Amino acid sequence: MAKENKSFVKEITPQSEDFSRWYLDVIQKADWMDYAPVRGCIVFKPDAYEIWERCQQELDREFKRTGHRNAYFPLFIPESFFEKEKEHVEGFNPELPWVTEAGGDILEERLAVRPTSETMFGHMYAQWIQSYRDLPVLLNQWANVVRWEKRTLPFLRTSEFLWQEGHTAHATEDEARAETMQMLEIYANFVESFLAIPVIRGQKTPSEKFAGAVDTYSLESLMKDGKALQTATSHYLGQNFAKGFDIQYLDKDNQRKYVYTTSWGITTRLLGAIVMVHGDDRGLVIPPKVAPTQVVVIPIGPAKTRETVVPAAEQIVASLQSAGVRVNIDAREDVSPGWKFNEYEMRGIPIRIEIGPRDLENGQAVLVRRDTGEKLPVPLTQVDETVNELLATIQADMFQAAKNRMHEHSYVADDLAALVNYIQNERGLVLAGWCGDDACERAVKDACSATSRNIPFDPPAQPKHCVTCGKPAQYAVWFAKAY
Amino acid sequence: MAKENKSFVKEITPQSEDFSRWYLDVIQKADWMDYAPVRGCIVFKPDAYEIWERCQQELDREFKRTGHRNAYFPLFIPESFFEKEKEHVEGFNPELPWVTEAGGDILEERLAVRPTSETMFGHMYAQWIQSYRDLPVLLNQWANVVRWEKRTLPFLRTSEFLWQEGHTAHATEDEARAETMQMLEIYANFVESFLAIPVIRGQKTPSEKFAGAVDTYSLESLMKDGKALQTATSHYLGQNFAKGFDIQYLDKDNQRKYVYTTSWGITTRLLGAIVMVHGDDRGLVIPPKVAPTQVVVIPIGPAKTRETVVPAAEQIVASLQSAGVRVNIDAREDVSPGWKFNEYEMRGIPIRIEIGPRDLENGQAVLVRRDTGEKLPVPLTQVDETVNELLATIQADMFQAAKNRMHEHSYVADDLAALVNYIQNERGLVLAGWCGDDACERAVKDACSATSRNIPFDPPAQPKHCVTCGKPAQYAVWFAKAY
Ligand SMILES: [Zn+2]
Ligand SMILES: [Zn+2]
Repeated sequence: MAKENKSFVKEITPQSEDFSRWYLDVIQKADWMDYAPVRGCIVFKPDAYEIWERCQQELDREFKRTGHRNAYFPLFIPESFFEKEKEHVEGFNPELPWVTEAGGDILEERLAVRPTSETMFGHMYAQWIQSYRDLPVLLNQWANVVRWEKRTLPFLRTSEFLWQEGHTAHATEDEARAETMQMLEIYANFVESFLAIPVIRGQKTPSEKFAGAVDTYSLESLMKDGKALQTATSHYLGQNFAKGFDIQYLDKDNQRKYVYTTSWGITTRLLGAIVMVHGDDRGLVIPPKVAPTQVVVIPIGPAKTRETVVPAAEQIVASLQSAGVRVNIDAREDVSPGWKFNEYEMRGIPIRIEIGPRDLENGQAVLVRRDTGEKLPVPLTQVDETVNELLATIQADMFQAAKNRMHEHSYVADDLAALVNYIQNERGLVLAGWCGDDACERAVKDACSATSRNIPFDPPAQPKHCVTCGKPAQYAVWFAKAY
Repeated sequence: MAKENKSFVKEITPQSEDFSRWYLDVIQKADWMDYAPVRGCIVFKPDAYEIWERCQQELDREFKRTGHRNAYFPLFIPESFFEKEKEHVEGFNPELPWVTEAGGDILEERLAVRPTSETMFGHMYAQWIQSYRDLPVLLNQWANVVRWEKRTLPFLRTSEFLWQEGHTAHATEDEARAETMQMLEIYANFVESFLAIPVIRGQKTPSEKFAGAVDTYSLESLMKDGKALQTATSHYLGQNFAKGFDIQYLDKDNQRKYVYTTSWGITTRLLGAIVMVHGDDRGLVIPPKVAPTQVVVIPIGPAKTRETVVPAAEQIVASLQSAGVRVNIDAREDVSPGWKFNEYEMRGIPIRIEIGPRDLENGQAVLVRRDTGEKLPVPLTQVDETVNELLATIQADMFQAAKNRMHEHSYVADDLAALVNYIQNERGLVLAGWCGDDACERAVKDACSATSRNIPFDPPAQPKHCVTCGKPAQYAVWFAKAY
């Protein structure tokens, strides 16, 4: 259904000129999305949605491997539910859409369209959990959620988005904390190994944590424009929701006790992260593991040679398909090879295979890597093997390249002036000491719009002084401008 | 997380006493659902949701095999969209929930929570489709939808439910009609071979068709109480939505033409159908192909023999798992075998394997079929093979049994008195002639609450006269009370 748009890649704004414009150009030209006729909503088109499906499959397997099961809870949440956890209502109320009429009647109680489902799970868990034998409860749901935010950006911040939300209940704090960390680690492995996006694991500062959580842990990643993006979160909720919703169990010692809960999620913003971490001025660069199409085969050469070249190209396709590669062919005659090269580069297909009459004479095809542009002539007998190796190499190299970029754009600042300078002139992540005072954190934001991303588990340095007030640092914190 | 409810199966109301009560008892005791704190909404609990996931996987593969791709369109639909197709707005307006406020503001235009997405797809297709080269467009989405209906019933008619909705656009009527029939046939094969539910393929009468369709085709199935349930629908929409949303393309002959569209869907009501077609007074009976757990192994015998029996049972489990069977063990000591037998029968697990000390001496285990109660002693060396064969046999036998029941409860009526008698005293499906007049169809409903289910493609008889007015019959129609 792709519109046959004969425009060339030069229509994409260069990243260096205007990164935001580049981003919006790329996701539209690559046919990943379209704007929907509802404020801040998009249509997820097939290529983007298929990547989301691959993310789902991969994560779902991990969730199930670690004992979780899927369920589905209602979209609508009664207004009164939000009142039961004070921080939660303050955090989410400003962003809620409200259903006030249904089936021709004005509703007695307004229904929020869920922004997240801690309250609904809490309400049900209170009824399901009676005894220590019922614990732990380990559920996840794949769902749509809505947050009516002021600024929206396709994939990264849309009014409606898709996600999964895990909600678990445990008998002890230790167990709940272990769950919180286990899920963060599952996300980290997934984002790094599947999406080729390096992450910083750490804890959110109190001002940045989830509304209603005791502790929020996050993965933070660096986009190519130097901004950070939170790629996953995992929340230790303590007994906040257990108390709000009265989720108690009778323990072995015959005492009624509140459970400890967690929640954790990743969203379709990951699609935006793939674009912003790997894309370049020619368009998307998709990691092979999630690419809907991993290889495109393009027969080239004069029209009179098509009779022999196209069947050879088709044979490559058939052979790669049996080798488990997701491969397409573009043998159209009314479109030039040059146009096709640009088009599939723009769409980020990891490998292009060119084959022409001279290649055929030499018994070879030419593999072209999207990530580096490198061309590799390969004997026809070795195409399957080489492609499979090369897909793994590209995946690894893309991760390494992103990791190098992250390190090159990571700085350590001793004082606010240095921090502001890094943020404004170098762009990237700045590690700085922090005394733990909200005001000192806020001062950074006021100075340069950078916010605290997280307190990393494994900081590359241990700053001695608070970047703002100079008092002894309690924490090493990553600051950055963020999406 | 299942509550250890020590109640026995006798707490399920017998089907013959009160089928509705039986249904509600079973789905709750088998832990398939719970009522949510929002009118007409339920929580889909893991066992039920996992069956839905298996349905999704199976159908999704078929959709993709036939050239469709998945996408995701917004949940919210602007009110004005509904006005663009006259029948559509009349059909759906009474059931819509409306978002009137969001993010602290009253919205300028109310947003409906989607009851179905013809309008949203139509709006986007109008922008994407320009040329004959863009056709066909073959998209599907897996989504939640909301219809605020007066009467609700878990799974069968809930305010919010899950479904997939395919939406396609074609250059010609022939192509669109072929698509409509192709999808109906995919559904029929799926429902029959995967869910073991026999279906009647046919066309809806004008009064029962989808609001906005030219022709609606359906699959109808018989529940054990003699009521019919529509298990799938596929709509040929002609140019109704194309004209409403101005979806035109430039054809090869350089003329602008309206496209022809289709839509088709199945929903989580299939879960209710599984219960009502196969369940019995002992509880659920789940077809092996969709069962989350296909086999449960239960070690039996006195406590002193557990040392040898439990490891033997675990070995059966390990072996079955490697043979690709979804198997669990219940070796709990604080619950009696009799309680477990009842429990897993109630949950509908296709095969129970009992193994005790005497079995072990004889080198055997006992397989018990859920559908027939039949017990088969099997040598331990042959358990894997026998289980795999038996699962296929159970699947086939369940389908055949349901088919026999449907035939036994299918009647042909020559006049209204006979039809009313069959509906009221025999319960089931009644085939009758119909002249094509709305009033004659309505008269049947007025007489006995039976509605026309569909005009079957392959009727078992060809009644000569309209069941109501006695004029020559144009159609053979299945009538039944329906969910
Ligand atoms: Zn300070
Ligand atoms: Zn008549």
